[in-house]
Amino acid sequence: MQTKKMYGGIEAGGTKFVCAVASGPGQIVDEIRFQTTTPEETLGKAIRFFQPFVSSGQVGAIGVGCFGPLDVNVESSQYGFITATPKRGWSHTNVLGILRGGLGIKIALDTDVNVAALGEFKWGASRGFDPSLYLTIGTGIGGGYIKDGRSLIGLLSPEMGHLRIPHNRELDSFPGNCPFHDDCFEGLASGPAIEKRLGAPGAMIPEKHPFWNIEADYIASAIMNYVLTLSPKKIILGGGVMQREFLFPKVRWRVRELLNGYVSSKSLLEHIDDYIVPPGLGNQSGSLGAIALAIQIDAEPKDSRV
Amino acid sequence: MQTKKMYGGIEAGGTKFVCAVASGPGQIVDEIRFQTTTPEETLGKAIRFFQPFVSSGQVGAIGVGCFGPLDVNVESSQYGFITATPKRGWSHTNVLGILRGGLGIKIALDTDVNVAALGEFKWGASRGFDPSLYLTIGTGIGGGYIKDGRSLIGLLSPEMGHLRIPHNRELDSFPGNCPFHDDCFEGLASGPAIEKRLGAPGAMIPEKHPFWNIEADYIASAIMNYVLTLSPKKIILGGGVMQREFLFPKVRWRVRELLNGYVSSKSLLEHIDDYIVPPGLGNQSGSLGAIALAIQIDAEPKDSRV
Repeated sequence: MQTKKMYGGIEAGGTKFVCAVASGPGQIVDEIRFQTTTPEETLGKAIRFFQPFVSSGQVGAIGVGCFGPLDVNVESSQYGFITATPKRGWSHTNVLGILRGGLGIKIALDTDVNVAALGEFKWGASRGFDPSLYLTIGTGIGGGYIKDGRSLIGLLSPEMGHLRIPHNRELDSFPGNCPFHDDCFEGLASGPAIEKRLGAPGAMIPEKHPFWNIEADYIASAIMNYVLTLSPKKIILGGGVMQREFLFPKVRWRVRELLNGYVSSKSLLEHIDDYIVPPGLGNQSGSLGAIALAIQIDAEPKDSRV
Repeated sequence: MQTKKMYGGIEAGGTKFVCAVASGPGQIVDEIRFQTTTPEETLGKAIRFFQPFVSSGQVGAIGVGCFGPLDVNVESSQYGFITATPKRGWSHTNVLGILRGGLGIKIALDTDVNVAALGEFKWGASRGFDPSLYLTIGTGIGGGYIKDGRSLIGLLSPEMGHLRIPHNRELDSFPGNCPFHDDCFEGLASGPAIEKRLGAPGAMIPEKHPFWNIEADYIASAIMNYVLTLSPKKIILGGGVMQREFLFPKVRWRVRELLNGYVSSKSLLEHIDDYIVPPGLGNQSGSLGAIALAIQIDAEPKDSRV
């Protein structure tokens, strides 16, 4: 009997950690979830979970999708550190170093959204579409871009949520709530921005509320900019705000209206329903993406991230 | 005596063609410039210029940076064609096919701005900086992004000039002149937009004119979006509008103000004078970029573009 190779994945969120051993979707051998407390306790739990799989040689590589801000520059002396974060006790934590020290196997780390993008590219809605873009619109807004099968990291990892877009002041007097940029995309369109503006969370706002057209305009403006800059072959919209499914047709319609025929691709002009889509892995993009990252570093002995 | 290998480059502009045989900057063996007339006449001249170098075996690969719109998708049946262009006689011209048919050697074609970006990356101001961005702000606005040594092409080639950015209607009542998007970046900030707004070309507008701060804000807004999306390690600003050198400090200052410390990179926070820079190759980015493209396809026998 042939046994499939197994990998470790950590979805390291600011609220909770998910650790899994798996060979792919639907092939999860073991999984544990726990609250994010102190770095020592939280990373210690993760190490203890993987230890038996590592000792027995069943798991030789682990991928980590981590909350940020994160130093993902492999040439930096702080590679794999969380940098300055409001999350108490976690500023300047060497997440990657602690995990490597505790487990002694190949481990790579990337931002949560890059890893989710990778999961969707390997097994989800953007499978076979390179380059592709995964955007999450929830508590914050972030994007992961996959090119040549890997997440894009340049000077730093992208911070696509903070795009500067036109603010419809005529219909939307909300000043924006981004502490850095006021009315950037995240400051106008994230879940907390919706709640602060309307006095109730997005999930409670009825579909007929006129605000949703404004929200769709902001999302579409950002998507227009991603299309013109990154030229992805598939765009996935995830996150809590996009749970309101009626937003998808609104956003697609507005993207086409804004581009106005300028990008003459059939994907946009004729098949936009297949171009801007929800995640294929539901809420597992992150944990499966971490497994996908482990598979990737295991396959490339000279991977610079390891 | 060792002879350096030689390559062909074509800067195929809508107004003029530059054809060169060279091994690199300052090593131009022969060069010809002529007006862009009909496709037959213009491409015929290019073929006749290169023919002796090809026959003698001196040139085995040619790179072309071409005006657009262009189909650069290697999987498309129209790869290497100019698509629908207002330039009379050139719509649906198989530029790549005609050149290949006439010369019978390896030829690759990319957009003019991608090729200029490649030239700057190989020999100019972004040498050693991967990923990097080259932006031209002139008659039109366009950008080329180099990642892993090659220009980014996705669904299509990027059209970064048409980014949707905040329009400062309070200080700038000009509605924008983009036929597709009115007040996109190009519609607000290109050379023709400046001239239409102020009644005189940008070259004639005095440095003290308050409009330049608005122009710098538009350029900085677009750069902020490129930084957050593409995370380049170097940004080059070329084109006619950027000939006004006083714009550089204005743009750099405004980029830092807009980002407001959010992207915590020394390149932005401490060394922005070295981060946003003019082209290193002056007005030769395009023709040298075409040579760089020829070198690239010559070195990779399995290059998908050939």
